[in-house]
Amino acid sequence: MSSFNESDTKAVATIRTLAADVVAKANSGHPGAPMGMAPVAHVLFSRFMRFNSKNPKWINRDRFVLSNGHACALQYIMLHLAGYKVTLDDLKAFRQIDSITPGHPEVGVTDGIEVTTGPLGQGISNAVGLAIGQAHMGAVFNKDGFPLIDNYTYAFLGDGCLQEGVASEACSLAGHLKLANLIAIYDDNRITIDGDTAVSFTEDVEMRFKSYGWNILHVEHGDDDLAAIESAIAEAKKSTDAPTIINLKTTIGFGSLKAGGHDVHGAPLKKDDIAQLKKKFGFNPDETFAIPQETSDLYAAVAEKGAKAEAEWKDLFKSYSEKYPKEASELERRVAGRLPDGWEKALPTYTTADAAVGSRKLSETTITKLAEVLPELVGGSADLTGSNLTRWKGAEDFQHPSTGLGSYAGRYFRFGVREHGMTAICNGLAAYGGLIPFGATFLNFVSYAAGAVRLSALSHLRVLQVATHDSIGLGEDGPTHQPVETAAWLRALPNLAFWRPADGNETSASYLVSIMSQHTPSVLAFSRQNLPQLAGSSIEKAARGGYVVEDVENPDVVLVSTGSEVTLCAQAIDQLKAKNIKARLVSLPCFEVFNTQSADYKLSVLPSGPPILSVEAYSTFGWGAYSHDHFGLKAWGSSGPYDQVYAKFDLTPEGIAKRAEKVVAFYKKRGQPLFSPLISALDDISE
Amino acid sequence: MSSFNESDTKAVATIRTLAADVVAKANSGHPGAPMGMAPVAHVLFSRFMRFNSKNPKWINRDRFVLSNGHACALQYIMLHLAGYKVTLDDLKAFRQIDSITPGHPEVGVTDGIEVTTGPLGQGISNAVGLAIGQAHMGAVFNKDGFPLIDNYTYAFLGDGCLQEGVASEACSLAGHLKLANLIAIYDDNRITIDGDTAVSFTEDVEMRFKSYGWNILHVEHGDDDLAAIESAIAEAKKSTDAPTIINLKTTIGFGSLKAGGHDVHGAPLKKDDIAQLKKKFGFNPDETFAIPQETSDLYAAVAEKGAKAEAEWKDLFKSYSEKYPKEASELERRVAGRLPDGWEKALPTYTTADAAVGSRKLSETTITKLAEVLPELVGGSADLTGSNLTRWKGAEDFQHPSTGLGSYAGRYFRFGVREHGMTAICNGLAAYGGLIPFGATFLNFVSYAAGAVRLSALSHLRVLQVATHDSIGLGEDGPTHQPVETAAWLRALPNLAFWRPADGNETSASYLVSIMSQHTPSVLAFSRQNLPQLAGSSIEKAARGGYVVEDVENPDVVLVSTGSEVTLCAQAIDQLKAKNIKARLVSLPCFEVFNTQSADYKLSVLPSGPPILSVEAYSTFGWGAYSHDHFGLKAWGSSGPYDQVYAKFDLTPEGIAKRAEKVVAFYKKRGQPLFSPLISALDDISE
Repeated sequence: MSSFNESDTKAVATIRTLAADVVAKANSGHPGAPMGMAPVAHVLFSRFMRFNSKNPKWINRDRFVLSNGHACALQYIMLHLAGYKVTLDDLKAFRQIDSITPGHPEVGVTDGIEVTTGPLGQGISNAVGLAIGQAHMGAVFNKDGFPLIDNYTYAFLGDGCLQEGVASEACSLAGHLKLANLIAIYDDNRITIDGDTAVSFTEDVEMRFKSYGWNILHVEHGDDDLAAIESAIAEAKKSTDAPTIINLKTTIGFGSLKAGGHDVHGAPLKKDDIAQLKKKFGFNPDETFAIPQETSDLYAAVAEKGAKAEAEWKDLFKSYSEKYPKEASELERRVAGRLPDGWEKALPTYTTADAAVGSRKLSETTITKLAEVLPELVGGSADLTGSNLTRWKGAEDFQHPSTGLGSYAGRYFRFGVREHGMTAICNGLAAYGGLIPFGATFLNFVSYAAGAVRLSALSHLRVLQVATHDSIGLGEDGPTHQPVETAAWLRALPNLAFWRPADGNETSASYLVSIMSQHTPSVLAFSRQNLPQLAGSSIEKAARGGYVVEDVENPDVVLVSTGSEVTLCAQAIDQLKAKNIKARLVSLPCFEVFNTQSADYKLSVLPSGPPILSVEAYSTFGWGAYSHDHFGLKAWGSSGPYDQVYAKFDLTPEGIAKRAEKVVAFYKKRGQPLFSPLISALDDISE
Repeated sequence: MSSFNESDTKAVATIRTLAADVVAKANSGHPGAPMGMAPVAHVLFSRFMRFNSKNPKWINRDRFVLSNGHACALQYIMLHLAGYKVTLDDLKAFRQIDSITPGHPEVGVTDGIEVTTGPLGQGISNAVGLAIGQAHMGAVFNKDGFPLIDNYTYAFLGDGCLQEGVASEACSLAGHLKLANLIAIYDDNRITIDGDTAVSFTEDVEMRFKSYGWNILHVEHGDDDLAAIESAIAEAKKSTDAPTIINLKTTIGFGSLKAGGHDVHGAPLKKDDIAQLKKKFGFNPDETFAIPQETSDLYAAVAEKGAKAEAEWKDLFKSYSEKYPKEASELERRVAGRLPDGWEKALPTYTTADAAVGSRKLSETTITKLAEVLPELVGGSADLTGSNLTRWKGAEDFQHPSTGLGSYAGRYFRFGVREHGMTAICNGLAAYGGLIPFGATFLNFVSYAAGAVRLSALSHLRVLQVATHDSIGLGEDGPTHQPVETAAWLRALPNLAFWRPADGNETSASYLVSIMSQHTPSVLAFSRQNLPQLAGSSIEKAARGGYVVEDVENPDVVLVSTGSEVTLCAQAIDQLKAKNIKARLVSLPCFEVFNTQSADYKLSVLPSGPPILSVEAYSTFGWGAYSHDHFGLKAWGSSGPYDQVYAKFDLTPEGIAKRAEKVVAFYKKRGQPLFSPLISALDDISE
C-alpha cells in the first residue's frame, strides 16, 4: 500500500472542519466524535471500504455501521465525499425537518446508510447480523472461483455502545460464531456525557472481548497515525476465525479548544473555536463547508475504484450465471426481495376435524412447510427451541464448521439466552438482503428486546418474532413469565403487526401477511395450551386482521376476542343461547392489519347498535377503540395449572357469559343504541 | 471451621431428593439446577448465611438471591429447612394457584424471598443493588465499634443469567464500584435449554469477570467437595475491594439417570428415576418428602445460631441508640419505611407568574428540594446527568473511596450507559430497605429497561424513573429518540404509575404521589422544551391523576391532554372562542391514579354529553377509555427543531382547534349526546 501524504492530512482536516460546520449550522448535534474519528474514517473509506456510491444496493458491498450514531455528521460527510446522493445542501440541512440528514442515521432515508443507529448498542449488534448475513449468503452461493459474496462489515462504536447489554449479548455470540468478516473499531476517547469514563466505565475492554473469543488489536495514536490505523485494519482482515476489535485511542473533538473534554460531545463548537480550528488546519476561518480540490479529487478516485469493483463483480456474476444458472437466478430473486411463485400454497389449512393443538405447534407446522419453499427464511430461538418449537425437521444449525455442530450454510440459529441481541441481529440480517429472519422467545421476553423491536419497525425491516407462551395460559411458570402488558405495547408501536391467532387457519394467515409485508416487522403470539380449530375461520378472512367468526341476526351483543379466548367466547355464546341472548363472535387477530381495512368493512364487523364486549387475557388497555366494555386482566397473572389460572380470573365460558349478560342488561336499561367505537370524526369513519 | 461429616452428606442428599419430590408432585418445574446446586446451598445456608428465619426482615441479614429463579424448588426447600414460614405442605403446593411457592420466586409472597427472579439476568443485577444498599447504609450509619450494617449479598446464577445483557451491565458496574460484599456463585453445569452450552455460549466467563474487575474463584468438584466450596466462600469474604464470582462446576440433575443432560432441566424426573435416586442416597424409595431427623436437627441449630445473631445485633443497636440516638432513630424510621414528618412541604408550588421552563428543569428543582428532606432518596442517571438534570446541588457521588471521586455515603449514582442494569439495580436498592431509589434516562430508553420495569411493578417496589425528553419535543435527535409507543406500554403495566406533568404544580404532584406510593413504581416523564405554568393547576388537583383545568358552562367539546400538550390545548381553546365554540380543558397527568378515583369524580371530569377529544404527541392507543376522538401521532416522529416537528404533525393550537371544530360538527350532525367513555357495565360506572 502507498504511504500517506499531505493529501491525506488535508482530507482528515477537511472532515474535521466540515464536522464543526455541519453541527454549527444546525446549532445542534455532536461534533466531538466526528472530529476524533476523522482519521479512521478517512483511512477506512479511502483504503478499505468496497462500495459503489452510484449503486448503494450492490449486494457485495462492504457494510459500514456507525454504532455511535450520534456521530452521524461524520457519516454524512463521508457519504458526501464518497459520491453518494448526499449533497453539500443536505449537509447544510443537518437535523432539519424532512432532510435526508436527520439527527441519527436512518436506513431508507439516506443512501449508504445500512442500519438505523443512535440508540446505543444497536449498531454493533446489527453489524453482527450483517456479518452473519454475509457468512450465510457466501456459504450458500459462493462456488470455487466465484467468491460472489465476500464483503466485510465494519463498525465504529464508542464507550456508550460497549456499556449497553445488547452489545454484550451480540458480541459474545459473534465470538462464538467466529465471524472473521466483522471488524469493529472502538473509539476509545475516555469521555462520556457524564464526564470521564472513570466515573462508571473502568472495565478492561480488550480483556472482555478476548473472553468472547475476539481478535484484539490496538492503535495508540488514533488522532494522527494513519499508517498504524491502516496496518491494524489490514491485520484485522487477515483473521480467519474471529471477529476483530481495534482499540483506537483518540481525542474527542480533536482540534477544538475543548478537545478531550465532554463539552465537545453534544453541543456545537463556539464561533471562535471553529475559527482557530480552521486556522490551525490551514483553512480560511471565514469560509464554511470548504472542501479543497485535492480532497475532492482523492475521493473521486475512491468512488471510481468502487465503481470499477462493482463492474468487475458484475463480470464475475455473468460467468457465474453461465455456469450456475439456477443459483444465479435464485440469488437475483432473493436480493430483489421477490418471493418464489406460489410459496403461499405451502401454508396449511384446517377444518374442525383437525386436532386441537397449541398454536405454537401450529406455528411449528407452518415453519416446517415454509422452510421448504422459502430458502431465505432463517431464524432461531433465544435458547427456547424446545418450547418455541421453531426448529424445523432437517434444519442445519448456523455454526462455524470447526465446531462440528453445523456450517455457515445452516439456517437455524442458536442465539443463546440473548433476546435483545437476537432481535438486533435479526435487524442486521434483514438489512443485509436476501433473507427473511425470525427470532423466538416467550412473548413476555420480547420486552427484553424492546430497544431493537422498535428499530425493526422504525427501519421498516421484515423481521418476524415467534412469541410463544403468550398469556397466563402458560400456567405454572407464573406471573414473572405471563405477559399482561406486552400486547398493548406492541399494538401501540407504529409499523408493527402484532398477531395473536386463534387457530390453525389464523396461524397460517399470520405467517402469510407477515412474510408479504416486506417493510413491516411482525410479532406472532402463540399459545402453549391446546386450541380447537374454529368452524368460521379461513386464511383469507383472518388475513384481514379481523372478521366475523359466528353470526346471528340482530345480535344483542358482539363478543370480540383474540387467540385462545376466541374459543372460550364461542362456548360462552352457546351458554347465552339458553338465556335467549344472541351474540355475534368476532376474532381480531391483528389490530394493525384490521385498521388498514376500509371503513365499510370495519363497520360491518363491529357495527353501531349492540354493545361490544372484548375478551382477552391481557390488560384491557387499548380495547376502547374496538369495544364498549372490556373483560381482561386488571393485574398480574398467577402460577398454577393453566386451566385453574384461567378459572381464577373467571376467564371461562361461564365467566364470559355472565359478563355478556350484564353488558346486555346495562345498555338495554340505558335505552340507546350504541355508536361503534370505530366511529371517528378525525378519521372520517361513520355509517 | 469444623469439617464436614455424614450429617452434611445426608443434608445434601435430602435437598436433592426433596427437589425431585417437589417437582414431581407439581408435575411441573425444574429439578436439574436444584439437584446440582444442593451442595453449595447447604454449605452457604448452614455455614455462612446470617439470618433469623423468625424475623426475615432483620435489616442486617445476609441477602440471598436465586438469579436462576427457575431453580426455586431449591430456595423453597432451604427456606423450609431453615425454619422460615414455608411448611412441607407449602412445598407440596409448589406451582399451585395461590400457594406461597409459585413457579418463580416472588418477593412479598414468600418470607425469605428478597427479590422476584426468574426472568434471567434480573436476580444478579438486583443483587448488585442489594450490595450497593448495604455499602451505602453501612457508610451512613456505621460508627467506630458499631458495624450495624455489614451484611453480605450472595447470588446463585446460571449460564442463562450470564448471557443476558442486563447482567453484563450490572456486573460491569459492580466491578467498577468494587463491591466486596457481593459474592456470586456461578453454577457452571454447561447445559442450557437448547442443549450443551457449546451451541451458543463459549466465552471465557472467568476472563470476562476479571475484565470487569471482579475477584475470581473456582471450585472444580461442586457436586461433592463441600470443603472446597466452604474454602471458596470464606476466601471470597476476605475480598476488600472487588466483588467475587465463584465458578462452581456441577452436574445438572446430579443423581438422576439423566444427570448432565438438558432433559433434567425443566421437566419432572420419571418415577423410576426418583426411586433409584432415593435408593442411591440411602432413602426409602417409597417415601416422599422425607427429611431425616439429623437434617432437621442440623438446620434447627442453624436457625438457632441465626436467632442468636439477631439478638446480639439488637444488643449492639441498643448501645448504638444510647451513644447515637439521632442516628438510631433515623435508621429505625428509614427501615420502617416512614417518611419524615412534613417532608411534602418541601415540594415547590407555582403560579402563572413563574417562568416557563422545561419540566425536566422543574424536576431538577423538586429533586433538589427533596434531597434535603429525604436522606433516603438516592439515584442517578444512565450517563445523561446533564440532560436529565438529576444531580442536585451538593450531591456526592456513590463511588469507592479509593477513586477520589466520592464515597459509599454518596447518594448520586453514575450508572453508565446501562438503562436495564440501572433499573434492576434500583429494584435491588428498593428491596434492601431504607432507600427510595431513582434512575434516569430519556423516556425512549426506559424501554431498554422493560424487563426490569415490569419487575418493579410486579414486585411492588417504590422505584422512580426520571424520564426526560419525553416526546417529539426533544426535537433534533429525531425519531430514534422520540417515544411514541412508550406511554401506552407503561400505562398498560399493572401497578405502575406513568406521570406526564404539564407544569410545575403537576411536577410536584407527580413526586408527591410517587413517593407516597410505597408499593408502586412510577415513571415521571418530563419535557425538554419550556412549558408555561397553568392558571388552573395545583398540587392537590393534579394528585388526583386528572382534573378540570379550565371550565365553561355547557361545553361543546372537552379537550383532554397531558404534559406539554395541555398548554397547546389551552391556546386552542382561546382560538375556538372566536368561533363560538366552548371547550372544557382537562389535564390527565396520570391515568393509573385517575382510575383509582371515585366514579362520581371521574364522571365529573369527563362526563357524558359533549364529545371528548384527546390531544397527545404519542400513539393514540389506549385513549379510547377516556375520549371519543383522539389526536396524536400515527407514525414515528421527525428530526428538526422541536417547534417545527410539532408543526409538521399539526400539533399546534391551530391544528388542535381545527380538529375540535371538526369533532363538534361531526357529533352535532349525528344528533345524539355521547356516553362518557368511562361508562362501563363491568365496572359499574354510570351516571
